[in-house]
Amino acid sequence: MEFECLARDGDARLGRLRFARGSVETPAFMPVGTYGSVKGLDCADLLASGSQMILGNTLHLALRPGVEVISRFGGLHAFMGWSGPILTDSGGFQVMSLASLRTIDDDGVTFRAPVDGRLFRLTPERAIAIQEALGSDVLMVLDHCPPYPATAGEIEASIARSTLWAARSCGAHGEGSGALFGIVQGGVDIPSRLRSFEALKPMAFAGFAIGGLAVGEPARERLAVLDALKTVLPPDRPRYLMGVGKPADLVAAIMRGVDLFDCVLPTRNGRNAHLFTTRGILRLRNARYRSDENPIDADCPCLACRRLSRAYLHHLDRVGDPLALRLLSLHNLTYYQMLLGRVRQAIREGRLVSLAKDFEALEEST
Amino acid sequence: MEFECLARDGDARLGRLRFARGSVETPAFMPVGTYGSVKGLDCADLLASGSQMILGNTLHLALRPGVEVISRFGGLHAFMGWSGPILTDSGGFQVMSLASLRTIDDDGVTFRAPVDGRLFRLTPERAIAIQEALGSDVLMVLDHCPPYPATAGEIEASIARSTLWAARSCGAHGEGSGALFGIVQGGVDIPSRLRSFEALKPMAFAGFAIGGLAVGEPARERLAVLDALKTVLPPDRPRYLMGVGKPADLVAAIMRGVDLFDCVLPTRNGRNAHLFTTRGILRLRNARYRSDENPIDADCPCLACRRLSRAYLHHLDRVGDPLALRLLSLHNLTYYQMLLGRVRQAIREGRLVSLAKDFEALEEST
Repeated sequence: MEFECLARDGDARLGRLRFARGSVETPAFMPVGTYGSVKGLDCADLLASGSQMILGNTLHLALRPGVEVISRFGGLHAFMGWSGPILTDSGGFQVMSLASLRTIDDDGVTFRAPVDGRLFRLTPERAIAIQEALGSDVLMVLDHCPPYPATAGEIEASIARSTLWAARSCGAHGEGSGALFGIVQGGVDIPSRLRSFEALKPMAFAGFAIGGLAVGEPARERLAVLDALKTVLPPDRPRYLMGVGKPADLVAAIMRGVDLFDCVLPTRNGRNAHLFTTRGILRLRNARYRSDENPIDADCPCLACRRLSRAYLHHLDRVGDPLALRLLSLHNLTYYQMLLGRVRQAIREGRLVSLAKDFEALEEST
Repeated sequence: MEFECLARDGDARLGRLRFARGSVETPAFMPVGTYGSVKGLDCADLLASGSQMILGNTLHLALRPGVEVISRFGGLHAFMGWSGPILTDSGGFQVMSLASLRTIDDDGVTFRAPVDGRLFRLTPERAIAIQEALGSDVLMVLDHCPPYPATAGEIEASIARSTLWAARSCGAHGEGSGALFGIVQGGVDIPSRLRSFEALKPMAFAGFAIGGLAVGEPARERLAVLDALKTVLPPDRPRYLMGVGKPADLVAAIMRGVDLFDCVLPTRNGRNAHLFTTRGILRLRNARYRSDENPIDADCPCLACRRLSRAYLHHLDRVGDPLALRLLSLHNLTYYQMLLGRVRQAIREGRLVSLAKDFEALEEST
């Protein structure tokens, strides 16, 4: 992987990530393909939405269908038919999100599989080995993501363990495999964040992720962390804010130097008929849309907006047709990718502040 | 609507139905779009499957979203974005299938809506008015479909009422609207079937449907009815066997002069990972497919077979991804349309008997 910064606008960066499997213009948003699919969407839909790169969940894929199945296909790309780059997480987020289903020690973490109760062990080395077997273009180190709020002791312990695991991940990472990113932890405590980064800095990471955010903290605390990190993170390497977020959160983070995002929001909200549009949020289950002949968003090029009305999509959702899940997820994802495209254009033209202001005004009006 | 018979092979007919909205080569299979969508498939999928014409359910659409909503769009075609011909049923089948939710008298039938308990009244005139508002290319008369098995008295009463309603439907049918088909009833009693047809014969129907089959009767009784009717039904008008059926049932009916079919089987079975292939039935939930790198059917041109493996589709079904519903429905529907295409070609070339034999051998081997 190579990263090139093409333009700057304030702290925002327009960049390009080059992979053997193609280039990604940054800032970029990766839809979440937990089980080797972005729910309800096929690969042609993902391309049509403007998605350049997707995310897969290592722990979930290791449980179903299992690494041995995906290995037969030579990796996740061939298994799911996606030819663009893939980033895989490490299972570190599930250390927090599946807290009641795991035990952790300094060597690694043991999960109880949510579906069948099977025990599954992840160590830093095993997380790397699985991601290499998946053929990931970007691998993440196994980390220990603390909850929010966390005590000073919990944050301290999480950093110590994450640093140790990052070093072991580096050691386990093979030459020929994808790029490896480190993950900065430290909760919303700025000195802890800086200490976590300092510990990772000497290691040979191709990029840095900011983990442990989007876990319930107020936006201003999240932005304070980004403000503190933007000056210390190496400018020649990509920065990935994990699990964020709403459209406004993306814009605010981009203005603080973030290049990569992933989030389930556009697809999960789409499945619940909660739609993002250039005129604000549209809750399609509202009875007012029952006979509305307009498209969801006249400015959106997605399949649903080009061909179908709010009334028809409201109806599909109401009768429980799985086609609604697809079309509404596709719409929201297209909205996200259009927004990122507009942001990249604004950075190129040095007018991101102005775009952000218009965007804030829209957010407040809805 | 115009019907032209292009070739015959035994009693089988190769034909063409001409509508203002395009032509349909017969024998043809119509996927079932109960609520203005074939579950999980968009219109591009329907076209890709080879579907030329689809079916909509009058009663279901009248309940959700309601005729007034669809009327705003000028009809069902614009509402759902389907530009090919549409046939609508009349609600007569639901007289039987929703028997516990309706009361019937000589004037019409009152349904209790399954979803919200609302009462909904259908008369022959109202069934026609709704179908005209939907903009159907082929309208069906309201009929009284008896259950199977039925007593001689039940069959007699059903024919009497269906004949009366057919005449009222003819009277209600407007000049400028779509083609109107009569429906022959009579259970599996041949004399009753012939009597039902004789009563409908003088009325101005553009085609004839054979109703009240595919309701649990043995195949040989169904085929006996078709054998009896094939010599009396007018050769210059299309014949539609309602609600049938399995691939072998279609072939057997085509050999007895049937031109049109509809059935939920390919899509419903698809959603349950029960797949039709040129090598027989494939139950994709079987663990043997967990790491099978082959496509469902190497001879199938559908999106799933061109791009994806059995293992991946097995996995999508297992994790409950709605994408599985779409891809597996699309596969089965493509299988049906390919089969109909092969049948049409065989009729053209006078070798339907030979194709049917190969097909029976395949059925028996799986």
